[in-house]
Amino acid sequence: MATERSVSGGLEWRVTIPEGSSVGLEPESSPLRKGWLGLVELANTMRSKVSGLGNMVWRLGADDPRKVVHGLKVGLALALVSLFYYTRPLYDGVGGAAMWAVMTVVVVFEFTVGGCLYKGINRGIATLTAGALAIGVHWIANKSGETFEPIIRSASVFMLASAATFSRFIPTIKIKFDYGITIFILTFSLVAVSGYRVDKLIELAEQRLSTVAIGIFICFLVAIFAFPVWAGSDLHLLITRNMDKLADSLEGSVDDYFSNDQTSEKEEAPSKKSQAYKCVLNAKASEDSLANLSKWEPPHGRFSFRHPWSQYQNIGTAMRYCAYCVEALNGCINSEIPTPEFTKKQLSDICIQLSSDCSKVLKDSSNSIKSMQRSGSIDFLVEEMNNGVQELHDRLTELQTDDMSLREVLPLIAAASLLIEIAKRVEGVVDAVDKLATAASFKNANDEKPEKTEVVTVEPVKELC
Amino acid sequence: MATERSVSGGLEWRVTIPEGSSVGLEPESSPLRKGWLGLVELANTMRSKVSGLGNMVWRLGADDPRKVVHGLKVGLALALVSLFYYTRPLYDGVGGAAMWAVMTVVVVFEFTVGGCLYKGINRGIATLTAGALAIGVHWIANKSGETFEPIIRSASVFMLASAATFSRFIPTIKIKFDYGITIFILTFSLVAVSGYRVDKLIELAEQRLSTVAIGIFICFLVAIFAFPVWAGSDLHLLITRNMDKLADSLEGSVDDYFSNDQTSEKEEAPSKKSQAYKCVLNAKASEDSLANLSKWEPPHGRFSFRHPWSQYQNIGTAMRYCAYCVEALNGCINSEIPTPEFTKKQLSDICIQLSSDCSKVLKDSSNSIKSMQRSGSIDFLVEEMNNGVQELHDRLTELQTDDMSLREVLPLIAAASLLIEIAKRVEGVVDAVDKLATAASFKNANDEKPEKTEVVTVEPVKELC
Repeated sequence: MATERSVSGGLEWRVTIPEGSSVGLEPESSPLRKGWLGLVELANTMRSKVSGLGNMVWRLGADDPRKVVHGLKVGLALALVSLFYYTRPLYDGVGGAAMWAVMTVVVVFEFTVGGCLYKGINRGIATLTAGALAIGVHWIANKSGETFEPIIRSASVFMLASAATFSRFIPTIKIKFDYGITIFILTFSLVAVSGYRVDKLIELAEQRLSTVAIGIFICFLVAIFAFPVWAGSDLHLLITRNMDKLADSLEGSVDDYFSNDQTSEKEEAPSKKSQAYKCVLNAKASEDSLANLSKWEPPHGRFSFRHPWSQYQNIGTAMRYCAYCVEALNGCINSEIPTPEFTKKQLSDICIQLSSDCSKVLKDSSNSIKSMQRSGSIDFLVEEMNNGVQELHDRLTELQTDDMSLREVLPLIAAASLLIEIAKRVEGVVDAVDKLATAASFKNANDEKPEKTEVVTVEPVKELC
Repeated sequence: MATERSVSGGLEWRVTIPEGSSVGLEPESSPLRKGWLGLVELANTMRSKVSGLGNMVWRLGADDPRKVVHGLKVGLALALVSLFYYTRPLYDGVGGAAMWAVMTVVVVFEFTVGGCLYKGINRGIATLTAGALAIGVHWIANKSGETFEPIIRSASVFMLASAATFSRFIPTIKIKFDYGITIFILTFSLVAVSGYRVDKLIELAEQRLSTVAIGIFICFLVAIFAFPVWAGSDLHLLITRNMDKLADSLEGSVDDYFSNDQTSEKEEAPSKKSQAYKCVLNAKASEDSLANLSKWEPPHGRFSFRHPWSQYQNIGTAMRYCAYCVEALNGCINSEIPTPEFTKKQLSDICIQLSSDCSKVLKDSSNSIKSMQRSGSIDFLVEEMNNGVQELHDRLTELQTDDMSLREVLPLIAAASLLIEIAKRVEGVVDAVDKLATAASFKNANDEKPEKTEVVTVEPVKELC
């Protein structure tokens, strides 16, 4: 509108109407001018949209440059595989089957090394087994006469495809071999059916298998050696970051509630810190996917072979269990009934203390995972937290409600009660971390000086939430 | 062990040891016998494992026969497409490109119609645009001399693949076009690179495009006309079922707490009904995926074109918001400190009443979605619920804690407080349902008599949780 006015450059009358509202009257313009103005406006809208998109894309790349690198890696892998077409001896070796190498690179190359290995290994095994099985079927069909041949081929495809598709609904198979089953059906159908028309089937199958293998090999090469993104490291980082966020938001929420007089501050948005727990609530899908992919990865960095990745999922569950209560606590804290300052003061110090204790326990656990060492102080911190719970219980007993009704102290008591529940659930997190420490044989912190630098070596990943 | 004994048939001595434990001594057996026994045991383990798997697979199929049907549908689609190879005129028309039809069917056929349409439309558009673009590049490369030709081809593949891969990280593109971008990169790379060796590139591209189209067409045909599974109906059902579950478990939890004397019942596992809310907590991934697929579906059943599917996601979020509090409530209820029966009795009726009110509101909302009619009673029910909240507030004011410390009534007060918070969040669910009713123009219940049968027409889907 502002643009339109400045472009039209016409006069503008403003009439004040008794009710207090004002109406702007604009000079009438010719259809041509209107059209021109419309075009200008359209161009402006487009420009702002494009620049908005540009900004968004820029931020996406700046926040996690690994995404840009991933794009370049895919380009590199494809450029490598296209050498097959340009180099005469290579192309002559595999002929038209070279396209399978290109296809393999496009569909197998994933963001994480684990994703690549999962797809590559699935594809390799599925191609091999389905190809062998299909050649067997082809052999039988070939011997059974012209009438039965198509029937045997189609019936075998129908039955195998049906059974294999159904097997994808079995959870363990779905998690580990979903992609492999697609490729199994694909390869089996192609080989079994096209055997009807193609003469040199075995040669063809051999060529395809070798080109698929070459495609997989190029993917693995680029994924592992050019700026690898390990699903395992990402999972490790996601869990520790979320644990820190949970600790921060627990402390932040309680601080927000007690530190200022609630009534005046209420209209303000809750601090960003205190809302960080929401990341934990929605992390299940990422955790599950990363944990499943991590299992395909070879030892890397500080993670040995058979690192107990699924234990990270348990820690995630324990954290979520805790975050549910933090969520409820936030709800109670923002209740409409303001608690009198006098009553609040009575519990303020112990509640802040307890939330800080819980937060310390969580941060200590998170540091223990980060450094992959058993914490020397966790037992002490948990004991301190439990003492805090005990003291809060005691203080609740002595709480002077004066003349106030229970109604007014309700949010306070609910918050205190939830805080006690949260402390219990924080212990659940500690237990889960302890199980990880046992399963991954974390060193004792006493055995050697904790190396502070080790914590820093993990590359920062933004936007993981 | 039992098997081993019965097979060996030998005597068995049992020596009672002073400490009270007893040790079984088994007769020594020959290596041959040992080997045989080992085999028998192995066979038994195998048999039990296989029968366990068989049972699981059977249950999977029995719980949701649509999964079995899906397997058969994939088989059918593949059998249909394999006709291409057997029918001379069809095969001659497309030649070796017939394999693309098979490939398309295998990768495009998804469980839901929405999934099929999403992949099919993505594949079709991506193949077309990438093919056209690649032929343009091929034309330029062809004219630019022997030295530059491979460079132009590879550089274009590198740049396009990098950019397209990076664009997959943009959330909106990821949700709508993820599969399309894979196919875009695949087709572009194949056509642009293989143009170096293949002479009749345009003819080849045409053949591939038409076979891909045939594959997509067969998929759509089978998906839509043979026992279709609509993502939209599933989402509709998932949301209403979860709402019922939430209502049940809210009522169940409060009932469990108040109905019996807590101390004696505590050791028992919480009733299954009261744990149903856990489905709601973990439903986010399913809801999001179903909602995204639903948007690709044509009008079906009672769902018109542009049915507001994303509003279901908002309802899901509101329900989860409510479920967090139910989770915290369950935690508080199972607290270690038993509340004296006398105090509990004072709030028992009103708490049970309020939880039943909340549950009624949720069930009424769920029925409103099921029948796709605005509820005539929802305002009244919400008012009743709010009256319940008010009364609970009042009763808390009058609560006689006698000589007891606040510590002992803590779980009770926390539960009451959470119940109040839950009532607030149930209103959030009602608001979300109301928005859906507006967006989907639900009829007023008053306009016509609600048809009870309509509610039943939705097929039951088990294991949706």
